Amino acid sequence: MSELIFTDDFFMKEALKEARQAFEKDEVPVGSVIVSNEKIIARSHNLVETLIDATAHAEILAITAAENYMGSKYLNECTLYVTLEPCIMCAGAMYLSRLGRLVFGTKDPKNGFQKFSDRVLHPSTKLSMKVMEGECSTLLKNFFLKKR
Amino acid sequence: MSELIFTDDFFMKEALKEARQAFEKDEVPVGSVIVSNEKIIARSHNLVETLIDATAHAEILAITAAENYMGSKYLNECTLYVTLEPCIMCAGAMYLSRLGRLVFGTKDPKNGFQKFSDRVLHPSTKLSMKVMEGECSTLLKNFFLKKR
Repeated sequence: MSELIFTDDFFMKEALKEARQAFEKDEVPVGSVIVSNEKIIARSHNLVETLIDATAHAEILAITAAENYMGSKYLNECTLYVTLEPCIMCAGAMYLSRLGRLVFGTKDPKNGFQKFSDRVLHPSTKLSMKVMEGECSTLLKNFFLKKR
Repeated sequence: MSELIFTDDFFMKEALKEARQAFEKDEVPVGSVIVSNEKIIARSHNLVETLIDATAHAEILAITAAENYMGSKYLNECTLYVTLEPCIMCAGAMYLSRLGRLVFGTKDPKNGFQKFSDRVLHPSTKLSMKVMEGECSTLLKNFFLKKR
């Protein structure tokens, strides 16, 4: 039964809830959750402007929280969901944490890690993309339209 | 007169003091300082094991502290000194903060950002390397010898 509920769409919708919180704070709307054994162990959204910290991307904050919760610097049994393709800093953090699986929503042709190399991720990290792509992309487009 | 004191060697020695603090905590001995107008505005060392956080590299901690001090997410007037060539996560953070200048001690052929691409840094970030290379490298070698 649980496999019908805990789909990639289910967890990406939770990441989207986080992204909407960022939107309301006038932050670039990116949200992330980290899942272990079908349980969300960390959730976060972009807080770069709020914290005045260029490193405060949703994924970095989620990885720090998840490792604290797990009591381990490795997340090889975890899946990280994020609404936007990670930048190279965040992909590097995923490498260091030996992330089990990365699922992202919409591609980031300008700053996404795939612009550099797929080798940025750890060889053991599985990758899925374009999950709930429309919703993730629309939220970002609406944010930048509002900013003009 | 001040230009005779505040050389790259001077600030790298301060980064080395931080690296030695990491060594004493049984952390991989990497240290960093960030300098603005010849003044150290942030200093830190690797705390990955202490904080159980794969993102707690010296550079990430220093960038967060410096941006907090400056009240700005950009460090375009700052120089970051670090004893070891940054990994791709840390180089990505330097890109996002539009770091003015990066000075590192010894190269990291296995995990250094230059393995991927020099394009990881922001085009406006100046780069100097091999400053106090011998001391930076010896400290790391001694750490890994002790670990065997």
